[in-house]
Amino acid sequence: MMRREIAEQGEAVAATLEEVRRRAERVREAMSGRRRILFVARGSSDNAAIYGRYLVETQLGVPASLAAPSIATHYRARLDLSDTLVVSVSQSGRTEEIVEVQRWAASLGAATVAVSNDAESPLAIESDVALTTQAGTERSVPATKSYTSQLAALAGLAASLDGGESLWPLLDGVPAEVARLEAAEDGVAGAVDLLAGSDEMLVTGRGLVFGTALEVALKLEETCLRPVRGLSYADLRHGPIAVVGPGLTAVVVAAPDGPMLAPIVELAGDLSARGAQVMAIGGDSALAAASAYRVAGPDLPELVAPIALIVPAQLVVEALARRLGLDPDAPRGLSKITATDPA
Amino acid sequence: MMRREIAEQGEAVAATLEEVRRRAERVREAMSGRRRILFVARGSSDNAAIYGRYLVETQLGVPASLAAPSIATHYRARLDLSDTLVVSVSQSGRTEEIVEVQRWAASLGAATVAVSNDAESPLAIESDVALTTQAGTERSVPATKSYTSQLAALAGLAASLDGGESLWPLLDGVPAEVARLEAAEDGVAGAVDLLAGSDEMLVTGRGLVFGTALEVALKLEETCLRPVRGLSYADLRHGPIAVVGPGLTAVVVAAPDGPMLAPIVELAGDLSARGAQVMAIGGDSALAAASAYRVAGPDLPELVAPIALIVPAQLVVEALARRLGLDPDAPRGLSKITATDPA
Repeated sequence: MMRREIAEQGEAVAATLEEVRRRAERVREAMSGRRRILFVARGSSDNAAIYGRYLVETQLGVPASLAAPSIATHYRARLDLSDTLVVSVSQSGRTEEIVEVQRWAASLGAATVAVSNDAESPLAIESDVALTTQAGTERSVPATKSYTSQLAALAGLAASLDGGESLWPLLDGVPAEVARLEAAEDGVAGAVDLLAGSDEMLVTGRGLVFGTALEVALKLEETCLRPVRGLSYADLRHGPIAVVGPGLTAVVVAAPDGPMLAPIVELAGDLSARGAQVMAIGGDSALAAASAYRVAGPDLPELVAPIALIVPAQLVVEALARRLGLDPDAPRGLSKITATDPA
Repeated sequence: MMRREIAEQGEAVAATLEEVRRRAERVREAMSGRRRILFVARGSSDNAAIYGRYLVETQLGVPASLAAPSIATHYRARLDLSDTLVVSVSQSGRTEEIVEVQRWAASLGAATVAVSNDAESPLAIESDVALTTQAGTERSVPATKSYTSQLAALAGLAASLDGGESLWPLLDGVPAEVARLEAAEDGVAGAVDLLAGSDEMLVTGRGLVFGTALEVALKLEETCLRPVRGLSYADLRHGPIAVVGPGLTAVVVAAPDGPMLAPIVELAGDLSARGAQVMAIGGDSALAAASAYRVAGPDLPELVAPIALIVPAQLVVEALARRLGLDPDAPRGLSKITATDPA
């Protein structure tokens, strides 16, 4: 199932972008008079929201951040959110914690946009503007097409708010590139060989693709039942790099351009010099040269690359799970509707 | 050195609180007319800032978040920060990235407060209000007294902005509790026994003590040169808990009261049931009962507990490093002034 759902992403992303574009005016109205954006999410949706945060700050110049849900659910803080657009992201639209935070935000004056895969979910129904991802029913537990559709919806949201209109033309090229990568099996087997022999893994990335790094780590961990850390470039440089050495496989994700590429290539070189085995996903030929192995990524500018960059990683994770004799569709101990606190 | 610096924290925290209290009026002036607080930090200072974020949101009702420094340093985004108080946190006050972000924020209209341990540092000199932690010279590379002094400074900042004045009385009790815990060697040897035999460790906490969990993980990793993950309660529940099993030691940190205690006790029980060895730091007798081992923490309310809760963990980390034949004062591969990008 996971394999099939990976292959449905080009279509899901295209339909989601179209859907969001139809609601661009509603999004602009919700933002009208507001000065900041607050994302509310958990798990894979949280990784999507991190992309949303970087995109909104870099492209729109609007301060953005991620909510700490317990501020609402446990501390019941009374923040003034009258200048805030809250964007809640949940595949099911039924994660109770996220619904509760959206309700809390609305009661404190926020306008709300819900990104969910179900127009009839409580999150969608209670929001001011519901952006419904067009992923269709996702049966495998690890999120694939729902995640890329969330990325597309968040990019569409930013494009809707972008006075310069410079994002829509970039987004036009994304569905075809997602579809191309779905079928790009070339580098997958080699990556699986490399990861199947790894005892310890970490994943790193920076800036607009930082959320991608966290999503790759989460997918590897959930699907292959191995502990995998996702670390920002900076957090890795600031300490944990001291424990990097032989025996570690470092997965480095990067867009093919942008201000992060040069520092990431340098990091890959440093990690290799410390004896780690570096596997690159995306980037360019310089990153390939600094790495032991590279799976090619999208040929898209950094601003929109994350929507397609996860696709080769999904193919690798799915194949790795099968190689390890695990079920990629329904990993042990996980269920489809997430709950932060046990019911 | 690290051992001696741990023992200097009661005094450093008391002096820092006094120093910040003297500047309370300046802090209020800087915040005047502003609606949100943005923290800028890396490494241990970032862990301190997470405490600041929760404290500001829960206690003051002011929206707060942590900056993504690359938004400034690499993407050069032009955010409107005219409604924002930026609080930069750096022990040395010389971490170039942090100085650059503070400069960027000021150019975009933010008022700036610098929390550093050096009144003559660029970060302090260029800020609108310099809050100088009174830790004195810190010689060992792992931050101890500079970190707890940062926590004290951030709590003092929140107290200065708290119209209800309810934080200062709570803070009055902190230095004595820090000093008491510095000398509380009771549970340390048992904790070291347990951790020295652990192949794999993670650390978790939630809400106001989440930053403490990340700091414990960072200290264990830096000082003992082992990979250690710090995870929020929610991130752990949302996926990685599926890979928890025998062979893992889970360190769970908690305040002795507050809305997070009950869910954390339940989590400790779940982790134990999955076969992990749970070591608690802080919490109450119920947390002790749900854990294989507990090191007692401060007898302070949750709002200010983090300032003292790290102290028993520091004692454990320092003793563990020595037990493992490592140098706790100058771990391999780390230097005192941090740099995110190589010069």
